[in-house]
Amino acid sequence: MLKVIAQDFIRPEFVEIVRPLYAELVETTRQEPLCLSYDLFVDQNDPGHFVFIELWPDRAALDIHCASEHFTRLVPLINKHQRQDATFILMDAFAG
Amino acid sequence: MLKVIAQDFIRPEFVEIVRPLYAELVETTRQEPLCLSYDLFVDQNDPGHFVFIELWPDRAALDIHCASEHFTRLVPLINKHQRQDATFILMDAFAG
Repeated sequence: MLKVIAQDFIRPEFVEIVRPLYAELVETTRQEPLCLSYDLFVDQNDPGHFVFIELWPDRAALDIHCASEHFTRLVPLINKHQRQDATFILMDAFAG
Repeated sequence: MLKVIAQDFIRPEFVEIVRPLYAELVETTRQEPLCLSYDLFVDQNDPGHFVFIELWPDRAALDIHCASEHFTRLVPLINKHQRQDATFILMDAFAG
Protein backbone atom coordinates (compact mmCIF):
# COMPACT_ATOMS: atom_id res chain seq x y z
CA MET A 1 0.00 0.00 0.00
CA LEU A 2 1.16 3.49 -0.82
CA LYS A 3 -0.15 6.45 1.17
CA VAL A 4 0.27 9.87 -0.44
CA ILE A 5 -0.13 13.44 0.76
CA ALA A 6 -0.12 15.98 -2.08
CA GLN A 7 -0.30 19.66 -1.15
CA ASP A 8 -1.25 22.50 -3.48
CA PHE A 9 -0.83 26.18 -2.71
CA ILE A 10 -3.19 28.39 -4.71
CA ARG A 11 -3.18 32.16 -4.89
CA PRO A 12 -6.11 33.43 -2.80
CA GLU A 13 -7.77 35.29 -5.67
CA PHE A 14 -8.00 32.06 -7.70
CA VAL A 15 -9.47 29.72 -5.10
CA GLU A 16 -12.97 29.98 -6.55
CA ILE A 17 -11.65 29.30 -10.06
CA VAL A 18 -9.84 26.09 -9.10
CA ARG A 19 -12.69 24.73 -6.98
CA PRO A 20 -14.64 23.10 -9.86
CA LEU A 21 -11.37 21.74 -11.28
CA TYR A 22 -10.64 20.03 -7.96
CA ALA A 23 -14.20 18.72 -7.78
CA GLU A 24 -13.82 17.13 -11.22
CA LEU A 25 -10.38 15.74 -10.35
CA VAL A 26 -11.71 14.08 -7.21
CA GLU A 27 -14.76 12.67 -8.97
CA THR A 28 -12.86 11.23 -11.94
CA THR A 29 -9.95 9.90 -9.87
CA ARG A 30 -12.29 8.01 -7.56
CA GLN A 31 -13.56 6.18 -10.64
CA GLU A 32 -10.09 4.81 -11.43
CA PRO A 33 -10.16 1.05 -10.85
CA LEU A 34 -6.93 1.16 -8.80
CA CYS A 35 -7.88 4.14 -6.61
CA LEU A 36 -8.40 2.98 -3.01
CA SER A 37 -9.09 6.42 -1.58
CA TYR A 38 -8.67 10.01 -2.75
CA ASP A 39 -9.86 12.69 -0.38
CA LEU A 40 -9.34 16.43 -0.56
CA PHE A 41 -9.12 18.79 2.40
CA VAL A 42 -8.61 22.52 2.91
CA ASP A 43 -6.35 24.02 5.58
CA GLN A 44 -8.47 25.84 8.17
CA ASN A 45 -5.78 28.53 8.37
CA ASP A 46 -5.20 28.97 4.63
CA PRO A 47 -8.07 28.61 2.12
CA GLY A 48 -5.56 28.31 -0.74
CA HIS A 49 -3.81 25.30 0.82
CA PHE A 50 -5.43 22.17 -0.62
CA VAL A 51 -4.37 18.77 0.73
CA PHE A 52 -5.01 15.44 -0.99
CA ILE A 53 -4.80 12.30 1.13
CA GLU A 54 -4.60 9.27 -1.15
CA LEU A 55 -4.26 5.51 -0.94
CA TRP A 56 -3.01 3.38 -3.83
CA PRO A 57 -2.09 -0.28 -3.98
CA ASP A 58 1.41 0.56 -5.21
CA ARG A 59 3.55 3.04 -7.10
CA ALA A 60 2.43 1.67 -10.48
CA ALA A 61 -1.17 2.61 -9.67
CA LEU A 62 -0.10 6.14 -8.74
CA ASP A 63 1.82 6.41 -12.01
CA ILE A 64 -1.30 5.35 -13.95
CA HIS A 65 -3.26 8.05 -12.11
CA CYS A 66 -0.67 10.70 -12.96
CA ALA A 67 -0.83 9.70 -16.65
CA SER A 68 -4.64 9.64 -16.81
CA GLU A 69 -6.61 11.93 -19.12
CA HIS A 70 -8.29 13.77 -16.25
CA PHE A 71 -5.03 14.27 -14.33
CA THR A 72 -3.00 15.51 -17.29
CA ARG A 73 -5.84 17.83 -18.35
CA LEU A 74 -6.91 19.24 -14.97
CA VAL A 75 -3.65 19.53 -13.01
CA PRO A 76 -2.00 21.99 -15.43
CA LEU A 77 -5.15 24.14 -15.29
CA ILE A 78 -4.96 24.14 -11.50
CA ASN A 79 -1.21 24.74 -11.43
CA LYS A 80 -1.56 27.94 -13.44
CA HIS A 81 -2.90 29.46 -10.23
CA GLN A 82 -0.24 28.14 -7.84
CA ARG A 83 1.63 30.51 -5.58
CA GLN A 84 4.33 27.89 -4.96
CA ASP A 85 5.17 24.39 -6.16
CA ALA A 86 3.07 21.49 -4.96
CA THR A 87 4.66 19.06 -2.49
CA PHE A 88 4.32 15.29 -2.34
CA ILE A 89 4.99 12.80 0.46
CA LEU A 90 4.96 9.09 -0.39
CA MET A 91 4.62 6.95 2.71
CA ASP A 92 4.47 3.45 4.12
CA ALA A 93 2.33 2.50 7.08
CA PHE A 94 4.26 2.61 10.36
CA ALA A 95 5.23 -0.95 11.20
CA GLY A 96 5.31 -0.55 15.02
CA MET B 1 -15.24 16.65 11.35
CA LEU B 2 -11.66 17.74 11.85
CA LYS B 3 -8.90 16.16 9.75
CA VAL B 4 -5.36 16.57 11.08
CA ILE B 5 -1.90 15.93 9.65
CA ALA B 6 0.84 16.05 12.29
CA GLN B 7 4.43 15.66 11.12
CA ASP B 8 7.41 14.77 13.30
CA PHE B 9 11.03 15.00 12.24
CA ILE B 10 13.29 12.70 14.25
CA ARG B 11 17.08 12.57 14.16
CA PRO B 12 18.10 9.44 12.20
CA GLU B 13 20.09 7.93 15.05
CA PHE B 14 17.03 7.98 17.32
CA VAL B 15 14.46 6.41 15.00
CA GLU B 16 14.68 3.02 16.71
CA ILE B 17 14.33 4.62 20.14
CA VAL B 18 11.13 6.49 19.27
CA ARG B 19 9.51 3.54 17.47
CA PRO B 20 8.03 1.87 20.60
CA LEU B 21 6.89 5.29 21.87
CA TYR B 22 4.98 5.84 18.63
CA ALA B 23 3.53 2.34 18.82
CA GLU B 24 2.21 3.03 22.32
CA LEU B 25 0.88 6.45 21.30
CA VAL B 26 -1.06 4.94 18.40
CA GLU B 27 -2.45 2.10 20.47
CA THR B 28 -3.57 4.27 23.38
CA THR B 29 -4.96 7.07 21.21
CA ARG B 30 -7.10 4.65 19.22
CA GLN B 31 -8.73 3.67 22.52
CA GLU B 32 -9.92 7.23 23.13
CA PRO B 33 -13.73 7.27 22.84
CA LEU B 34 -13.66 10.33 20.55
CA CYS B 35 -10.89 9.11 18.23
CA LEU B 36 -12.33 8.39 14.78
CA SER B 37 -9.02 7.45 13.14
CA TYR B 38 -5.36 7.81 14.03
CA ASP B 39 -2.89 6.35 11.57
CA LEU B 40 0.86 6.74 11.44
CA PHE B 41 3.01 6.65 8.31
CA VAL B 42 6.70 6.97 7.49
CA ASP B 43 8.07 8.96 4.56
CA GLN B 44 9.62 6.59 2.01
CA ASN B 45 12.37 9.15 1.41
CA ASP B 46 13.11 9.98 5.06
CA PRO B 47 12.85 7.33 7.80
CA GLY B 48 12.86 10.05 10.47
CA HIS B 49 9.80 11.79 9.01
CA PHE B 50 6.71 10.42 10.79
CA VAL B 51 3.27 11.51 9.62
CA PHE B 52 0.06 11.12 11.61
CA ILE B 53 -3.23 11.30 9.72
CA GLU B 54 -6.06 11.79 12.18
CA LEU B 55 -9.81 12.27 12.22
CA TRP B 56 -11.68 13.81 15.16
CA PRO B 57 -15.29 14.87 15.50
CA ASP B 58 -14.23 18.42 16.39
CA ARG B 59 -11.55 20.59 17.94
CA ALA B 60 -12.70 19.77 21.48
CA ALA B 61 -11.94 16.08 20.87
CA LEU B 62 -8.46 16.94 19.61
CA ASP B 63 -7.87 19.08 22.70
CA ILE B 64 -8.90 16.18 24.95
CA HIS B 65 -6.41 13.97 23.06
CA CYS B 66 -3.62 16.52 23.53
CA ALA B 67 -4.34 16.65 27.27
CA SER B 68 -4.51 12.88 27.73
CA GLU B 69 -2.14 11.00 30.01
CA HIS B 70 -0.59 9.03 27.14
CA PHE B 71 -0.10 12.12 24.95
CA THR B 72 1.41 14.32 27.67
CA ARG B 73 3.68 11.48 28.77
CA LEU B 74 4.83 10.10 25.39
CA VAL B 75 5.08 13.20 23.17
CA PRO B 76 7.77 14.93 25.28
CA LEU B 77 9.79 11.68 25.23
CA ILE B 78 9.52 11.60 21.43
CA ASN B 79 10.24 15.30 21.04
CA LYS B 80 13.57 14.97 22.84
CA HIS B 81 14.80 13.34 19.63
CA GLN B 82 13.39 15.88 17.16
CA ARG B 83 15.64 17.48 14.59
CA GLN B 84 13.08 20.23 13.95
CA ASP B 85 9.72 21.30 15.35
CA ALA B 86 6.67 19.24 14.52
CA THR B 87 4.11 20.73 12.12
CA PHE B 88 0.33 20.53 12.26
CA ILE B 89 -2.33 21.08 9.62
CA LEU B 90 -5.97 21.27 10.73
CA MET B 91 -8.34 20.79 7.83
CA ASP B 92 -11.94 20.69 6.70
CA ALA B 93 -13.18 18.36 3.97
CA PHE B 94 -13.24 20.05 0.55
CA ALA B 95 -16.83 21.08 -0.11
CA GLY B 96 -16.70 20.94 -3.93
